[in-house]
Amino acid sequence: MMLSRRSAAYLAPSCANGKLFTHRASSPLCRQLKLQCSSPAIRSYHSRPAKLISAQLLASTRPTLAGQLVSCHGVRYLSGKPLPQRRSRVLNFLYRSAALFGGSLLVFGAGVVAFFLYDASTYSETPTFTDIQVSKLALSPRKGGPKNLPIAEVQLDDDDSEDMQRQKEKPKLVVLGGGWGSVALLKTLNPEDYHITLVSPTNYFLFTPMLPSATVGTLEFRSLVEPIRRIVANVKGHFIRAAAKHVEFSEKLVEVAQTDEDGNEVRFYLPYDKLVIGVGSTTNPHGVKGLENCHFLKDIDDAQNIRNSILTNLEYACLPTTSDDERKRLLSFVVSGGGPTGVEFAAELFDLLNEDLTHLFPKIIRNEISVHLIQSRGHILNTYDEAVSKYAEDRFNRDQVEVLTNSRVKEVQKDKIIFTQKGPDGEAITKELPMGFCLWSTGVSQTKFCQDLAQQLGDAQTNRHALETDTHLRLNGTPLGDVYAIGDCSTVQNNVADHLVTFLRTMAWKKGKDPETMHITFGEWREVAQQVKKRFPQAADHLKRLDKLFEAYDKDQSGTLDFGELRTLLMEIDSKLTSLPATAQRAHQQGQYLGHKFNKMARAAPGLRANDVLDGDLDETVYKAFEYHHLGSLAYIGNSAVFDLGGGWSLTGGLWAVYAWRSVYFAQSVSLRTRALLAMDWAKRTLFGRDLMSW
Amino acid sequence: MMLSRRSAAYLAPSCANGKLFTHRASSPLCRQLKLQCSSPAIRSYHSRPAKLISAQLLASTRPTLAGQLVSCHGVRYLSGKPLPQRRSRVLNFLYRSAALFGGSLLVFGAGVVAFFLYDASTYSETPTFTDIQVSKLALSPRKGGPKNLPIAEVQLDDDDSEDMQRQKEKPKLVVLGGGWGSVALLKTLNPEDYHITLVSPTNYFLFTPMLPSATVGTLEFRSLVEPIRRIVANVKGHFIRAAAKHVEFSEKLVEVAQTDEDGNEVRFYLPYDKLVIGVGSTTNPHGVKGLENCHFLKDIDDAQNIRNSILTNLEYACLPTTSDDERKRLLSFVVSGGGPTGVEFAAELFDLLNEDLTHLFPKIIRNEISVHLIQSRGHILNTYDEAVSKYAEDRFNRDQVEVLTNSRVKEVQKDKIIFTQKGPDGEAITKELPMGFCLWSTGVSQTKFCQDLAQQLGDAQTNRHALETDTHLRLNGTPLGDVYAIGDCSTVQNNVADHLVTFLRTMAWKKGKDPETMHITFGEWREVAQQVKKRFPQAADHLKRLDKLFEAYDKDQSGTLDFGELRTLLMEIDSKLTSLPATAQRAHQQGQYLGHKFNKMARAAPGLRANDVLDGDLDETVYKAFEYHHLGSLAYIGNSAVFDLGGGWSLTGGLWAVYAWRSVYFAQSVSLRTRALLAMDWAKRTLFGRDLMSW
Repeated sequence: MMLSRRSAAYLAPSCANGKLFTHRASSPLCRQLKLQCSSPAIRSYHSRPAKLISAQLLASTRPTLAGQLVSCHGVRYLSGKPLPQRRSRVLNFLYRSAALFGGSLLVFGAGVVAFFLYDASTYSETPTFTDIQVSKLALSPRKGGPKNLPIAEVQLDDDDSEDMQRQKEKPKLVVLGGGWGSVALLKTLNPEDYHITLVSPTNYFLFTPMLPSATVGTLEFRSLVEPIRRIVANVKGHFIRAAAKHVEFSEKLVEVAQTDEDGNEVRFYLPYDKLVIGVGSTTNPHGVKGLENCHFLKDIDDAQNIRNSILTNLEYACLPTTSDDERKRLLSFVVSGGGPTGVEFAAELFDLLNEDLTHLFPKIIRNEISVHLIQSRGHILNTYDEAVSKYAEDRFNRDQVEVLTNSRVKEVQKDKIIFTQKGPDGEAITKELPMGFCLWSTGVSQTKFCQDLAQQLGDAQTNRHALETDTHLRLNGTPLGDVYAIGDCSTVQNNVADHLVTFLRTMAWKKGKDPETMHITFGEWREVAQQVKKRFPQAADHLKRLDKLFEAYDKDQSGTLDFGELRTLLMEIDSKLTSLPATAQRAHQQGQYLGHKFNKMARAAPGLRANDVLDGDLDETVYKAFEYHHLGSLAYIGNSAVFDLGGGWSLTGGLWAVYAWRSVYFAQSVSLRTRALLAMDWAKRTLFGRDLMSW
Repeated sequence: MMLSRRSAAYLAPSCANGKLFTHRASSPLCRQLKLQCSSPAIRSYHSRPAKLISAQLLASTRPTLAGQLVSCHGVRYLSGKPLPQRRSRVLNFLYRSAALFGGSLLVFGAGVVAFFLYDASTYSETPTFTDIQVSKLALSPRKGGPKNLPIAEVQLDDDDSEDMQRQKEKPKLVVLGGGWGSVALLKTLNPEDYHITLVSPTNYFLFTPMLPSATVGTLEFRSLVEPIRRIVANVKGHFIRAAAKHVEFSEKLVEVAQTDEDGNEVRFYLPYDKLVIGVGSTTNPHGVKGLENCHFLKDIDDAQNIRNSILTNLEYACLPTTSDDERKRLLSFVVSGGGPTGVEFAAELFDLLNEDLTHLFPKIIRNEISVHLIQSRGHILNTYDEAVSKYAEDRFNRDQVEVLTNSRVKEVQKDKIIFTQKGPDGEAITKELPMGFCLWSTGVSQTKFCQDLAQQLGDAQTNRHALETDTHLRLNGTPLGDVYAIGDCSTVQNNVADHLVTFLRTMAWKKGKDPETMHITFGEWREVAQQVKKRFPQAADHLKRLDKLFEAYDKDQSGTLDFGELRTLLMEIDSKLTSLPATAQRAHQQGQYLGHKFNKMARAAPGLRANDVLDGDLDETVYKAFEYHHLGSLAYIGNSAVFDLGGGWSLTGGLWAVYAWRSVYFAQSVSLRTRALLAMDWAKRTLFGRDLMSW
């Protein structure tokens, strides 16, 4: 170990005068330090008379010896040599920091190298042609069913691997739609229990809550979508890109259609043992004229059109030939609908204008821009807590986003919006607003497929807006346990009062009476209430004070409730039950619920078969009813965010709330890929801003 | 310093038997180590008779003392305590590694925190409304020019800041087109010298060489494009999104047009002092029928259409109703054109099929896919070195990409391609190829704008394919020094022979003769050759052996060359000069050349003005002629790449060549943003594969 001049001075770090300690060859010190002291140089050194010698002198004349002496007396260091400047704290700190950073850089560099090595392994050099088996039935399906179309009994990839082949004998589960409900269902199901086929016209799952971010370039489109095939592959399932058209409930066939490049439509049947309908909803124009001049925000290509539109308007406003009025009109952005989608879009638009526009566009553009939000109710975000609404409104006020409440859009023309606003006396004043861009974000309505289904099921379906299911999510009017519906396209039908007879039945049998002539004591009322809560979990909130309810409805003060009084009570509760909200959260919960239930049913199936229990309410036997837990709503309002946690709790805040808002969605992402892409997009925005390009 | 049992054993690291060395208080060792030895405990210890004591015993009975002794004799460690297990190398290594990783994690964590802090600063909370100045002329331009259109003498953002205001007085430089030439020009120019306006119908710069990667999802579209406004902002320039239509050379006005949302076209003039035309080229269909059934690959939306098309075909092929033949047809991908674009697209397609398809699609799809490449010459990549061509062909052969050479496409129908291939006897055999997707990637041709310009300039423009410029890149036929042309739309006209008189003029004047009656000696010939090389650098290669040339063309062996012989010589050289290739490289070099020249001219301008040199060949005075240096060509061939470095040098290789290929483009990227996005895209592909979604 060669020693530098400085190192020699460290031999005795406490020695202020730089002198070297002396020792003799016979000293126990050296006898112990056998290793180094076996060096002949040291031995010869030791044989001389002891004397003090300056460390520097030793280091300059006998550097090797000095080095050996250091190792002689030194203790093993964690990182080798002692620090050069022992006394100076500042320099010590700097050296330690340098060592820390250097070590980190080394580790980071090693990580990069490891990544590249992994990368090199992801390229498959040789083409992978393998012998495959494909069933004849898959290539040429038999025809059948009411319309004599091909029936896809066997899929193309049913024989692709051993895993897939095992699935062929499982009960067939067909899922329609690739949205929140279906994906939650798929992620919850056990891969081994069912042969799963997902049918959807889009081959990706869209993370809808963050769609407004993609319209202005905060996020990229591909960060919000996950290929459905990846999700389906995890449950060893199959994907068919087609649109569902019709269902034959008795033959258990779903009719699906796909249009080829020439515009011809091909149709075929998919057989099922269980069918789950999660087709979602479409936008509801509420009968407003001129909607072809508006943009919608339901899907990815909508977001792309919006992005292009915004930038085209900006570029056009920069031309010298654009008049002042024309410029103001082009830069007038109107959002119709004050719900979360509209509010978040207005907020993101404001971010784009404020953060990215000012640097690259003429300043006059920034000054002339105006953003307007038209809301038909008295407050934006009116489904949220009042405090949250107020915060959002204050925020928009400060950001100079004009909020027009109590306004209803009458007509949308190419260059202006005509709407009526409630004046101070309550009368409707018609107003005009020149606009260059309009986003329509209000309301959902039933898809045609669901309308047809409802019609097909006749009296069993009474709701005009959604398919009605019972509390086990089974579609009313279909054979029990065959068809389920979740998500936006469905709502749980609560008709507690209609089930009164069922509730009283057991009790009546015990008493040997007719259910309809019974008189219920308070104790029996409690039993009935229990049954109701079990079957209709949503009603639980309204069945808290049973004693008060009993008193209130015991009109004749008889101390008992008769059939009529009980019925009135339950009808009153019915009227209070709101239909489930059409949100991603609810669809997600329903999908998960169904997934758990199906798993249980698959496990219970052998037992039930053994006990010959094939009919009846299998769902009820195996699992509980669906209960929706509202976890809260959030919204992004332009460098601030609001959280409505239900029951009066709410949080509003600035940048920290934005980070929390992002974290929630980050956690809710459907895969690691999505999370990585979200993180990269946000990082890219931080470093380089949003992209202001359109094509 | 509290000492653990283990630490005590380290007091004498070389002591195999764990014994502690002894020393006396009076020993020079302790005298020197003044600090620690001032501890009373140590002093008392020292006063006892010297004896050996086991280190462990000391540590267990007198831990504090043991610690002090350690610090007495020890040297400051870099990280504090000595290693727990001194003897065991494995554990030492593990401890050191743990410390290293721990430290790296700390640093990495600190980096993440710092990034978030920076991120928090990038959100602007309050709306930034500032008072701005806009010139009245910018808002309401005067009308004028031959067609009485508005003249944009002042831009909207000319007064946005002090920087911008200073630019108003500078000479106006108008650049048409936002491609390689224009961007290279902008990045080379000094910001202070000119008032720059860039006019282009697209508001982004496209990194064309990597476009094939974006068609299959290896890269995202936005990673290949850079907003033009960012590039323009760096030179304090302006951007106008419009298409150039016409140029009035005498009034120095460019007529540009933009179409608004209603389809109405607005036109106006842009005044210029210098005009640079870099509008590029369009695709050349070579008169083939049925090109509406083909895809092109010139721009980003082309790439997007291709991506959607490929995935739509794949999804359609998965349907049960698709017959075998139909499936084969849908999965037959044809590329017409064996140049770099076609070859790279075929390679990327192959990557997609091999690496991502197999996991998520039915295996039968992979087996049925076929990729075909139709090339009219005898080899693909025929403009490259022969070895490179051969390697590419072998590679495609192995990857089962069918290469059809000597084939010319006759017609493209919706479901098949009809082409003729040269049979063994040289006759053309007509063949058909069912196809589901066709990419047309051959040839470039002149844009309409350039055709109109050429017509306008009449006889000065003789080339049918590109605008001709002189070797200073000035457009032939326009006032000297006003209009330049670079990139695909232009070619440098070498007509050395026509300038013969100019070359001989000085010499003739000296001799008092007419240039056309002169006889040139060898010495004079060398002077003439010098002038030629200076003015036509491309001719330099052909003027190497002047003596041989002199001999060869001295037909009458007179020892001199007369005018006719000299002219023949120069015309021979002319015929050997090839036109410049239509590549990004050449446009880039031309852009840079012009940038340097303009910078020099701006700096020379005051001097020239002082000396009253306003007319004449200013370019010639200030700068040299343009010389194209072919740096080489590269191509990606599917997990392998080829480099043709010119002059017979070439490199071909597998994965390492792919990394080199990527590195070249990475380095050539136009901004840090692009580099970051490319890196993220490649990393995302490594971790998650390509996206198989379309909308």
